[in-house]
Amino acid sequence: MFEAAELGQSVSKDEYREREPVLRGELLDAQNRLRASAAFPVIVVFAGVDGAGKGQTVNLLNTWMDPRWLVTRAFGEPSDEEQERPEYWRFWRALPPRGRIGLFLSSWYSRPVLDRVYRRMSSNAYEHCLNRIVEFEQALAEDGALILKFWMHLGKEAQHTRLKKLEKDPTLRWKVDAFAWKHWRKYDAFITTAEHTIRQTNRGDAPWMIVEGADARYRSLTVGTAIRDAVIKRLDAAAEATSAARARADTPAAGRARRVSSGVTTILSNLDMTKQVAPAKAEERLDRYQGRLNLLERQAGAAGISTILVFEGWDAAGKGGAIRRVTSALEARQSQVIPIAAPTDEERAHHYLWRFWRHLSRAGRFTIFDRSWYGRVLVERVEGFATERAWMRAYAEINQFESQLIEHGIVLVKFWLHITQDEQLRRFKEREATPHKRWKLTDEDWRNRERWGAYALAVNDMIERTSTGDAPWTLVEANDKQYARVKVLKTVCDRLERAVAHRRR
Amino acid sequence: MFEAAELGQSVSKDEYREREPVLRGELLDAQNRLRASAAFPVIVVFAGVDGAGKGQTVNLLNTWMDPRWLVTRAFGEPSDEEQERPEYWRFWRALPPRGRIGLFLSSWYSRPVLDRVYRRMSSNAYEHCLNRIVEFEQALAEDGALILKFWMHLGKEAQHTRLKKLEKDPTLRWKVDAFAWKHWRKYDAFITTAEHTIRQTNRGDAPWMIVEGADARYRSLTVGTAIRDAVIKRLDAAAEATSAARARADTPAAGRARRVSSGVTTILSNLDMTKQVAPAKAEERLDRYQGRLNLLERQAGAAGISTILVFEGWDAAGKGGAIRRVTSALEARQSQVIPIAAPTDEERAHHYLWRFWRHLSRAGRFTIFDRSWYGRVLVERVEGFATERAWMRAYAEINQFESQLIEHGIVLVKFWLHITQDEQLRRFKEREATPHKRWKLTDEDWRNRERWGAYALAVNDMIERTSTGDAPWTLVEANDKQYARVKVLKTVCDRLERAVAHRRR
Repeated sequence: MFEAAELGQSVSKDEYREREPVLRGELLDAQNRLRASAAFPVIVVFAGVDGAGKGQTVNLLNTWMDPRWLVTRAFGEPSDEEQERPEYWRFWRALPPRGRIGLFLSSWYSRPVLDRVYRRMSSNAYEHCLNRIVEFEQALAEDGALILKFWMHLGKEAQHTRLKKLEKDPTLRWKVDAFAWKHWRKYDAFITTAEHTIRQTNRGDAPWMIVEGADARYRSLTVGTAIRDAVIKRLDAAAEATSAARARADTPAAGRARRVSSGVTTILSNLDMTKQVAPAKAEERLDRYQGRLNLLERQAGAAGISTILVFEGWDAAGKGGAIRRVTSALEARQSQVIPIAAPTDEERAHHYLWRFWRHLSRAGRFTIFDRSWYGRVLVERVEGFATERAWMRAYAEINQFESQLIEHGIVLVKFWLHITQDEQLRRFKEREATPHKRWKLTDEDWRNRERWGAYALAVNDMIERTSTGDAPWTLVEANDKQYARVKVLKTVCDRLERAVAHRRR
Repeated sequence: MFEAAELGQSVSKDEYREREPVLRGELLDAQNRLRASAAFPVIVVFAGVDGAGKGQTVNLLNTWMDPRWLVTRAFGEPSDEEQERPEYWRFWRALPPRGRIGLFLSSWYSRPVLDRVYRRMSSNAYEHCLNRIVEFEQALAEDGALILKFWMHLGKEAQHTRLKKLEKDPTLRWKVDAFAWKHWRKYDAFITTAEHTIRQTNRGDAPWMIVEGADARYRSLTVGTAIRDAVIKRLDAAAEATSAARARADTPAAGRARRVSSGVTTILSNLDMTKQVAPAKAEERLDRYQGRLNLLERQAGAAGISTILVFEGWDAAGKGGAIRRVTSALEARQSQVIPIAAPTDEERAHHYLWRFWRHLSRAGRFTIFDRSWYGRVLVERVEGFATERAWMRAYAEINQFESQLIEHGIVLVKFWLHITQDEQLRRFKEREATPHKRWKLTDEDWRNRERWGAYALAVNDMIERTSTGDAPWTLVEANDKQYARVKVLKTVCDRLERAVAHRRR
């Protein structure tokens, strides 16, 4: 695979002197156009052999372009805040917003590749890592990110020569430590892993480019040109797509959604909506489960187990009340309720999952989402805020996101609070009639109600596609509020108990 | 001071049963009004004797109010990310945005009080901490934050009884560890420190309320009522102020600014604007300083010294070019340029310094601000975006902010790049005439130019009031670009060299 990167390609001083200023100007122009359009983020990943010029190239790109709109990232040992979250939290945190270019001097590739070369990771685990990378890059690319990956190569002999040369230079000798030589001796294993990695992660929307790193002028022009071309091509395509879309003047997906009848049969149709708990028993059972939850919270906290609760459900299904029954059993300092409404402008400048990643808490805490990432396949689908392509792929993205939470040991519990259409109408009318509850009822609630059928279908699809073994949906029959609250509390307790017991073993 | 909190005040069950639901409803209403107005943040600090019900009260408030709009915070041992920044970084990070209520179960008071009680901190250092607290709270209050501080009290005997009682309860015994008794034996020292602390930090816009903590019903109603009253009072005042302001229809401050003649004499008038460097020498000197800076960066990085560079200056004074000469000497992964333009909506929901706190980097890095927190006393002053009161107090707030950076060991270098009016005109015209530079020149640049005199006065005041021993302004004569770049690089090198030498001693 790397033969083509050991051809001894080089660029003469004269050629460089001629091409460099032109390329700089074009890169700067491309960067300015990108910033003005804010159409997509650019993610440039560098990987490869030590000494093949990764750092120098990134430094050079920082001089060629406007450093104010570049984000340069490298990842060392994870900080304790990073260690307490799933691995990819630090990568999500570091992503550039639309309109900016992120240069990743080390990345999601670094740890797996090194761990594999030094045999700290099994071949199976490595495949798992590579799949995660593919999924991650795919999610970003589907969201519009332009992803470019450069593998900077240097032959074994060339690297040997380089290390020897550095050792002789008193000002650069510090760069050659024991690790550098140790790493050199692993060269063959490194190349084998590299080939496999590149093959598995080389996708159309996140391609690898292998760059011969021996000649600084050659590699600089090669990388710079590739970035320039890719950015300009994508900008042109984006501009064209915008004007084409304007010409077409699509019918919004919402139009379609409204035509779904509300009598449709879904998973929800099978729920026994007469379930209730006797008022006399309700208080006693709520108290019991709250006490149990309080104890479990402390045990989970001590074991470093984080818990994430997701609440979705019909308007007026009683999400708020159920959440309060949970939080009132918890230590307020250990828990946080995150209400999900319209995204802020910073959130809008990133992939839609970004805002949920940023809310992941440190170890041992409770995070409760009042509505969640499922908005993508519910309201955004039904109202046509997301394209069909976007919400269709969201199921897979959500499953990938949740599997990372679970792998990190987080207990994830998801609730759909279900009420019947009649019960919703009764509650809406009650809210209308009660002065201090009237603010809770908006025109939007009435509009959503008209699309009951479309929402029911969306809920059905959501549950079918995202209820997994480790992150199942719990459907809560919520016509009786007390019954719903007891069921929510009991479910949280059961799941937490299992997690604590499992951790102890 | 605490006598009034040892009177044995209590509330009967019947009274509580009557008052509690009313108070809950009112608190919820106040919270909803606050959220709808998004007029100001509410910061509620809890401190006091262990066992006086801090945690229980905060938990209760979380059940009384809507937990979705509450932010509950407590601070344990600082994480490594926190340790690498000035102490208050974690507090700034945790502040609630306008419209929300933050409950601080521990706070900026916790560490200093404990350190003082256990004599790990000198009395002088303690006074310094208290001053910092007063300044911090004052800055937030001046920005509109409603600050309430509750000191939860329990007499020495009462605390003794409580510990004994807890020890007898098998389910609660875990709460009484060796530290709890050790802490109890320090009770008198604690009370002395507490009295002093409360006296020094009890200000009109951030008052302390001492609450007798022995009776749970009494303390809950007392705290809840105080929060309700303060929030409602402030909401009413805010609503009144808004309508009054509308009625007045102020003349904007900008109107005044424009009348300042541009011939005004300021600190800038004394600069020798003919300074230049011979073109032949410029390249060689730039190279030399860049080499020196690169070496110093590594030494500073190894010593954990962070560097912050602030660039301010006239439009077209060459900030961008100077910044690029600095960044091109640095490792891109170790440095970050932060361009300061309009704030995002998340930033707008906080104190104006919040957005700068959030950009402080981990130890050993370079952060370069292209424009900065000085916008408050420059553009915001001249254009009337900030009220006179707001920009007048900003000098003190900025000095306090910078002193925290310096205390943490950060090297702070501030540049004002100065050009003459004639030179600016020449550069504007050159930009107009050069196709690929035309985008850099906006109508705003021409408008700013018309207000040269007002800006010159603002710059003069800024330098006079914020040039301190540890954070002096460097005025850069920038009519000759090369001269300016050399001076910037040399200044950064000199300051960094001193810091590295100092750290070594």
